[in-house]
Formats: sequence, structure tokens, C-alpha cells
Amino acid sequence: MEITKLKLENVQQKLQPYIHRTPVMKSRLLNEITGAELWFKCENFQRMGAFKMRGAANAIMSLSEEKRKKGVVTHSSGNFAQALSLAAKSLDVPAYIVMPNNAPEVKKAAVRTYGGQITECPSTLKDREETASKIEKSTGATFIHPSNDLEVILGQGTAAIELLQDHPDLDYVITPVGGGGLIAGSALAVKYFGNSCKCIGAEPMEADDAWRSMQSGKIETNETANTIADGLKTNLGDINFPIILENVDKIIRVSEDEIKSALRLIWERMKIIVEPSSAVALSAIIREKENFKNKKVGIIISGGNVDLQRLEF
Amino acid sequence: MEITKLKLENVQQKLQPYIHRTPVMKSRLLNEITGAELWFKCENFQRMGAFKMRGAANAIMSLSEEKRKKGVVTHSSGNFAQALSLAAKSLDVPAYIVMPNNAPEVKKAAVRTYGGQITECPSTLKDREETASKIEKSTGATFIHPSNDLEVILGQGTAAIELLQDHPDLDYVITPVGGGGLIAGSALAVKYFGNSCKCIGAEPMEADDAWRSMQSGKIETNETANTIADGLKTNLGDINFPIILENVDKIIRVSEDEIKSALRLIWERMKIIVEPSSAVALSAIIREKENFKNKKVGIIISGGNVDLQRLEF
Repeated sequence: MEITKLKLENVQQKLQPYIHRTPVMKSRLLNEITGAELWFKCENFQRMGAFKMRGAANAIMSLSEEKRKKGVVTHSSGNFAQALSLAAKSLDVPAYIVMPNNAPEVKKAAVRTYGGQITECPSTLKDREETASKIEKSTGATFIHPSNDLEVILGQGTAAIELLQDHPDLDYVITPVGGGGLIAGSALAVKYFGNSCKCIGAEPMEADDAWRSMQSGKIETNETANTIADGLKTNLGDINFPIILENVDKIIRVSEDEIKSALRLIWERMKIIVEPSSAVALSAIIREKENFKNKKVGIIISGGNVDLQRLEF
Repeated sequence: MEITKLKLENVQQKLQPYIHRTPVMKSRLLNEITGAELWFKCENFQRMGAFKMRGAANAIMSLSEEKRKKGVVTHSSGNFAQALSLAAKSLDVPAYIVMPNNAPEVKKAAVRTYGGQITECPSTLKDREETASKIEKSTGATFIHPSNDLEVILGQGTAAIELLQDHPDLDYVITPVGGGGLIAGSALAVKYFGNSCKCIGAEPMEADDAWRSMQSGKIETNETANTIADGLKTNLGDINFPIILENVDKIIRVSEDEIKSALRLIWERMKIIVEPSSAVALSAIIREKENFKNKKVGIIISGGNVDLQRLEF
């Protein structure tokens, strides 16, 4: 499929009934601290609490009527499990979610609330893939990957499209980098909707696979990923990586202390609840302050699903 | 001073350059839970993180040029100390803040950041009043009470005015009740800007002085006030109480468990950081659900200054 501006506009229009157009916030104090003009696209206020709702809904809507009837399947213990469940429910499609049997009860409960049908399995990647594959065969459901799927990528890109529609003169759009779906979609949005705008990724040093992949030109993986930004531990995929390599200006890496300090700034000063992954983008700007001085910078706040019992302040 | 709609309009207009017009949020899920249509006026996004900025700024602006030069003084260990400091700084007026010597360092630091000049004293009310009185005499500064001051009350009312301008068809406006400034100002706003709208107060059972005062017709006090809603422990005053008695429809009391559960709902579902006092209003609606069914209800979210190190989830 060729990607064009028209294609992206169609995705945005098609998605509208199923998502919130989230607000864009600013903070006088964070502008003072960074010396930049920051615009925060608040996907923590998105349905189910994260941008993943966009990609999940778009992936399902891209299926034929016949395929929709048979449902969708994924394996995830995080936001994508909830997103696919809620999107499927909104579109009246069955959703089969493979979750590791050690997933927290609270996450299973959230998936069930949104109508997802859970199958538990051992927590290795091999077991999860095999279990999903069995469900595909027995139900005819279509497997949807959380980040390495073109329709998912295009859906995720609509957050940056909305941000650029609200603020067409941004110099940069920055997003955290995990599995690569959000950054790839955002980079396409910047390419077609930006005005001399660049897309930048932000990544924990502890899980810097995307930074290394950009250096080597091939997909590198994380051996360990000891980061508070638990949404960013996953690796890039063969569909999103070429888009990233071509369209992302650079990746900025940040330390765990920098992430925690930015997280605290957002909670304390902006009074919004965001997941640690969302703070990675702000910490990248603070780290490379001099490069962003007097620039207009859009930041994708990826989500706000945090376990309040396990806060690490 | 006679209170008229014109007077309130003037206050609102005069305040504009010094405050944010805060956003009004809604939550599909909280509407489902309550069966009502809720509109949250987010004063947690106000400058310095609470509605108190409004009253502080209005009180200072009501002083003569000569009095402004000599400054303002108050005793407070909470939001009003920060509000008066920031408002005074914005208006280029000296602010003297009396704080108990056992006040947390973080609160003193916040006052200093906003330019307030701190005088410490022992933590009894008598010591605080005497110290403030000495500063009044030595500097000529004007004492501003955090809640029992007509200009403060009128300033606090502008949050509800904005809310009613955005949503003129509200059936109720609900606010938490502490010292009485917010509820008195909101009740006046509802009287002059509402359309068959009623103003209701919400109060912890543990500090139900306002509820008791409404019953007895005179100002009752709290002997103890063992509540998580630490902004609501103070008593009413002789200036705000007559306004409350005449214009507030009723006070709803809620338990500590109800407050904590509503607090959690707001944090987890709305993804915004609010102080426990703000959750008191939502918990009142949940407690008396049947009375609010299908009604349009405005809730004043009073503020978002929370010590993240001391979260009680």
C-alpha cells in the first residue's frame, strides 16, 4: 500500500467516531524551564487512557466485513490489549487477547471490562505467539500486532496529525519510542502535515534499541531493559523500522534519573497523570535544551495508565 | 458594599490578566457511574495549582495604590500563602507570609519561589495572629484573610461564573466547603449567573462544621478534623457565613472512605491530579446519586497541590 497524504486524511476521518480529539496543553513553567514553547498532546485523556486506541481501531476498520465477523487476536499484557478490546467492542467485533498467566489481575480485569476474551498462557514470547496462532486457526480471527502493522502505524499517526492541525508551525514533534508504531506514524504525520517540521524520538538509555538501530541501519534488540518506562522495552519491527529510518530526524537517549525527574515535573506542575514513557519525551528536551531553545515543540503524551499502588516517586 | 451582578462582572474582568481561564472537563465513565452529566471546572490547572489565586488577586487589586505599596500580609501554611505570594508578585506588591515553624520545607520553598517573605512563628493560632499583627504594624501592610474577606469571596466566585458561562444550563454547582470562601463566592455566582441552578456544598463528616452551622443558624466549629481533605479543616467566618446561609441549598456530608474512593476515580479515570478536598464534591454526588440522576452538575475541582511522597492510596 502506498502511503499518501490522502490516505492519512482518510484514516483520520474514519477514526473520528471512535476516539477523542484530545486536548493540547501548555505549561508556562515548563516553557520557562526548557526555554522552548512546548505543546503537549494529551493522549492520557484518550479512550482507555492511551494513544493505542487509535491504531487498534484503525486496524480493525481496515478489515473486510467477513474478517471482522471472525474477530481479532493479539498477545499483550499492556495498553494494546485494552485498546484492541475496547476498539473491537465499539465496532462490534470479537477480540481474543492472549495474556501471560502472571499478568497483574488489574490488567486482566481492564481487558474484561472492555469485553476482551482472555486466554492465559506461560509468559514466554514463544508461548504467547503459539497461543495466539492457535486462536487464529480455531476462530479465523485476524492477528493484529501492537506496533508492527501498517494500519496500526497509520492510526497512531493521527495524534500528531491533530496536533499539527492545531499548531501548524511546530518545529519538532517528539514521541517516545517503544515498539515503533507511534514514532513511525508520527513521522509520517510530520512528513505530510508539518511545515519544515522534524520528528524526533526519545528513548531510555536502558532500552536504546532504536538509537542503535538508527546507527547500524538494521533492527537491533534490547538484551535487558531495566527502565521505569515499561512501555518502551519492546523492539522495532520490519514494517515500522524502514519508515523510522527514512523519516525520523534523530533519537535522543535519556537516563532513568532524567525520566523520573521529568515525570515528577509533569505530575507536579501540569497536574496530569502520565505514564513514565510519556516523560521520556520531555526529559529529552530538557537534556538537549540548547537545541530546542526558542523552538516550538509538540510532545506526544502517550498515555496515563499507571498503577497508583506502585508509584516510584 | 452591595453585591450586584455588575460587581461580579467587574471582578471577573479585572481578574482576567492574572489568572487562567481553566478548562472544563467531562468523563464518559463518571457520567455512567453517577447517572448525571458532570462538568469539572479544573482549578487544579489554575496558576499555583488552586482556585485561591483568584481571591488573592482580587483582594490585592481592591486595595488603594497607597495600600498596595505597603504590601499584604497573611498567615497560612497552605495554598493561600502561595496564592497571595504569586498574586502579589504579579501585581508588584510586597507579600509577608506568616508560617508555623513546623510547616513542611516544600511549602516554604513554594512561597519563596513566588516571592513571598516568610516570617516563622510557633504553630498556635494565637502566635500566628500576633505575628501577623506585628507585621501589619511595622510595615503598614494590609491583612488579607484566606476566606473571610468579601473581595476574596468575590474572586473565588469567578470560577463558577466561568463554568456557568460555558454551561449556562447547569442544575447544580457543587464545591467543597472549608473556610467558606469558595462556597460563598460560588453561591453568589450561581445566584446571578445561574438559570434555575442551585449551589450545594460538600464536606467531610470528620469536619462538618458548615453542615452543623446551617442547621443551627450560627457558626459552629470543628473540635477535631481527622480528614484526608486537609484543605477543609478550617471554620466558617462572619463575612462568608451569612452569604452561605442565604444562598446555599444544602451541604452533603461524606465519609473518609467515600472521599478516598472518589479521589481514586478522578486520578485513575480522568488522569488528572487533584487534592483530596476536590474529591469531596464528587463523592457527595455518588453518595446521593438518586438526587442527581439525569441532572447537569458542575463540580469545582478546587486544586491539585499534592505531596506525591505522601500519597494515601
